[in-house]
Amino acid sequence: MTLRVGIIGAGPSGLAQLRAFESARQKGAVIPDIKCFEKQDDWGGQWNNSWRIGLDGHGEPVHSSMYRHLWSNGPKECLEFSDYSFDEHFGRPISSFPPREVLFDYIKGRVEKSDVRKYVQFNAVARHTSYNEVTQEFTVTVEDLKTNLTETHVFDKLVVATGHFHVPAVPEFKGIKTFPGEVLHAHDFRGAERFNGKRLLMIGSSYSAEDIGMQSHKMGAASITLSYRTTPMGYDWPWNTVERPLVTHFEGNTAYFSDGTYDDFDAVVLCTGYQHKYPFLPSELSLKSPNVLYPSNLYKGVVWQQNTNLFYLGAQDQYYTFNMFDAQAWFARDVMIGRIQLPALDEREADIADWLERQAALSDHDAEADFQSDYLRELIDATDYPSFDLDAVSQLFKDWMHNKHTDILGYRDAVHRSVVTGTMATKHHTRWINALDDSMERYLNGPSQEDSSAPAGLTDRHRGGQEDLEGSGAGPSLIRHAHTSVS
Amino acid sequence: MTLRVGIIGAGPSGLAQLRAFESARQKGAVIPDIKCFEKQDDWGGQWNNSWRIGLDGHGEPVHSSMYRHLWSNGPKECLEFSDYSFDEHFGRPISSFPPREVLFDYIKGRVEKSDVRKYVQFNAVARHTSYNEVTQEFTVTVEDLKTNLTETHVFDKLVVATGHFHVPAVPEFKGIKTFPGEVLHAHDFRGAERFNGKRLLMIGSSYSAEDIGMQSHKMGAASITLSYRTTPMGYDWPWNTVERPLVTHFEGNTAYFSDGTYDDFDAVVLCTGYQHKYPFLPSELSLKSPNVLYPSNLYKGVVWQQNTNLFYLGAQDQYYTFNMFDAQAWFARDVMIGRIQLPALDEREADIADWLERQAALSDHDAEADFQSDYLRELIDATDYPSFDLDAVSQLFKDWMHNKHTDILGYRDAVHRSVVTGTMATKHHTRWINALDDSMERYLNGPSQEDSSAPAGLTDRHRGGQEDLEGSGAGPSLIRHAHTSVS
Repeated sequence: MTLRVGIIGAGPSGLAQLRAFESARQKGAVIPDIKCFEKQDDWGGQWNNSWRIGLDGHGEPVHSSMYRHLWSNGPKECLEFSDYSFDEHFGRPISSFPPREVLFDYIKGRVEKSDVRKYVQFNAVARHTSYNEVTQEFTVTVEDLKTNLTETHVFDKLVVATGHFHVPAVPEFKGIKTFPGEVLHAHDFRGAERFNGKRLLMIGSSYSAEDIGMQSHKMGAASITLSYRTTPMGYDWPWNTVERPLVTHFEGNTAYFSDGTYDDFDAVVLCTGYQHKYPFLPSELSLKSPNVLYPSNLYKGVVWQQNTNLFYLGAQDQYYTFNMFDAQAWFARDVMIGRIQLPALDEREADIADWLERQAALSDHDAEADFQSDYLRELIDATDYPSFDLDAVSQLFKDWMHNKHTDILGYRDAVHRSVVTGTMATKHHTRWINALDDSMERYLNGPSQEDSSAPAGLTDRHRGGQEDLEGSGAGPSLIRHAHTSVS
Repeated sequence: MTLRVGIIGAGPSGLAQLRAFESARQKGAVIPDIKCFEKQDDWGGQWNNSWRIGLDGHGEPVHSSMYRHLWSNGPKECLEFSDYSFDEHFGRPISSFPPREVLFDYIKGRVEKSDVRKYVQFNAVARHTSYNEVTQEFTVTVEDLKTNLTETHVFDKLVVATGHFHVPAVPEFKGIKTFPGEVLHAHDFRGAERFNGKRLLMIGSSYSAEDIGMQSHKMGAASITLSYRTTPMGYDWPWNTVERPLVTHFEGNTAYFSDGTYDDFDAVVLCTGYQHKYPFLPSELSLKSPNVLYPSNLYKGVVWQQNTNLFYLGAQDQYYTFNMFDAQAWFARDVMIGRIQLPALDEREADIADWLERQAALSDHDAEADFQSDYLRELIDATDYPSFDLDAVSQLFKDWMHNKHTDILGYRDAVHRSVVTGTMATKHHTRWINALDDSMERYLNGPSQEDSSAPAGLTDRHRGGQEDLEGSGAGPSLIRHAHTSVS
């Protein structure tokens, strides 16, 4: 009987799995019966963003944590598919840090070229899974959100590709219940225009706090305070941005910090991370992990230890993204179709233990990038996923992190070289701090007349282009406080 | 074997079911084995409110749609338990429109007196239900949110008491994706303090739009525009509040209405109602209904037609609330334990058809109140739930609706007489428009010194007390625009 494979989620990871099988089929392999279930009405996962917060039109939790004016916060050269380059997709060099819509277009380009959409059932949410140890089959109950009808599907292999950056982790803070301003988690942040002139508190010290903070600065927030639990980020922040230790409590609109300082705020954004959550899986199949580079219990970061018919994609914290999901999907595919023979349980356990030990010894971000490069190397060496220069990508990560520390508002204006094609990125026509239209059309077609007409009254460092206002929905009055200096 | 009853939800409806069984037990009946599952960490349902929006601490959809400064929008005399009066709970007369915390305390009082908490498993969410036609048993998979462990439970009878005002219905509007201000559904509204000085658009024309609009007026919103689909509410709104027909689209921060008018807004609150959603039930057991006084397919509004072992509580649109849930729970109880014999399917169908026909002919709100009173009469007559004067409550509803039309900001200052005890409510010490502390302590203990010291510069109609600011989290600067006149 043909192998039956179920894939939950059609974001970058789920699409990588479809593409992995399609790639094998094109090379003449017989591929399994595949069914992919996606709760949204289109593929793309996080990249298929929404204006909605909380629950979507069907009353399901909104998946995407993305927002208007989100530009890639890492170089595109670090996530490039090695079997589908940016050059192939766009037909010309582009910049290193494109906005969301441009990257979404790139992801879609590859899967639209191949005939894989037929495998995906949209508006379909997995509700419940059981595994029969005797028949070694998964039974997955899936609800069609348009009809509310549930169907059960039986699979030999199950791929969990739902991601882990969509269910917010939200701690309680004393007094937050009566904070009179807006309180939201980063997951529900959809744009910083309304924070113009506001005093903002971001609780958290990772990508969300950093990026939402600087988005808000760009849109004219009066001040940005970043509250960290253990370690400040330490960037060379603009003049209106400070770091404080953790909030102890709120009283009215005043937040008190553990160093005894306090301040009044208009809004609080909880950049407190996300939790792994797989409500459609029984607990014995459900990954419980903090956000780390090597979650335990997954052989090669992919195969569930106690049940090797179950696979997780993208369950790691991520330096690499799209290309890592590819490497994992190719590996999972080859395990499923028998090209890769898994070692015995104790050997797998030892392999996991080795990685966990190495992870525990990581001393800094550079070492983390190298760690994940090494992880990808193992995966890629095991399959026919086109290899690429992982050491060069490691160096790209280090350059990028260095650039961020040099210039948190300007690192996106840097250009990097593709390790897939050797193409050097072009400088974008508008500096990130000045770019207020994040549409693909504007990205590809150059600045409007307004962009090039007059110099902006911004910082020395970031001077060079007028704010690009068209189509952003943000009128001039919304940016009147912006960027008078950078400390 | 003892009958096994599962109850999903420990809000007012689920607690009514527990209380119904407890009442029978106290009178000597043998009661079933009961298990009640509540996803929150305490009982009370909507009344157990949260500062969170979207997803809760466990990543489950937040249940409560309530907010700071929510005062009852209907007379408490219309919802009084006939077996547990307000007098019994508070030991003295109180006003007719108490704030949330006071009503929550009242609900809890009754169940805390009886020994029913033992039946409730908290932090427990029902994930999946199947029904075996042969054994006539429900199998319910429940996840413990603290351990992520799932357990299956088998029941002979299942009571769905999860409510239908917690999953927002959110239509798409053209251009809303780039509206630069805050956009949220009423479900995620937690307080109007931050709307001070803002131009607000409420889309909807029912309780949420009306109440959130007037809350925002009270907190100093610059303007409130209420956009209706078919019929304006037509209240005598304050000077800064207008009604407009439905929004056709947004451009930037401008909303365009179907009458050709348009205006700029700072925030949009989608008061577009809620959907019935029972993700833990298979579609054949799941109620699909608009929000109406008589959903079809439920005999006496309670018993699922195709499977009379399944019961819904509170699935109606509601004039009556707590006491209706009681009447339904007593009825469901008596069906479960055999005190009430159900007629045959076609007789039940005919009974439903009669009610639906009568519902279709309802011409106005007064008639709707009478309709629901008649519905309660049938239920109460069938059980030993203590009867009360339903015609008098119908009249209370009509008086209340009349008062709202006379004075939308002042109707909560009216007092009504209990039909359970005959007690006349007392006037609250502070008019609603002036009451900015909604705590039970302030409610019961009288205004602060500030309240009584100086007259407020409010409207003629609502003059009479200073804003009560203590503990509300709203400093004076937040209410500077408040209430200069009432049109």
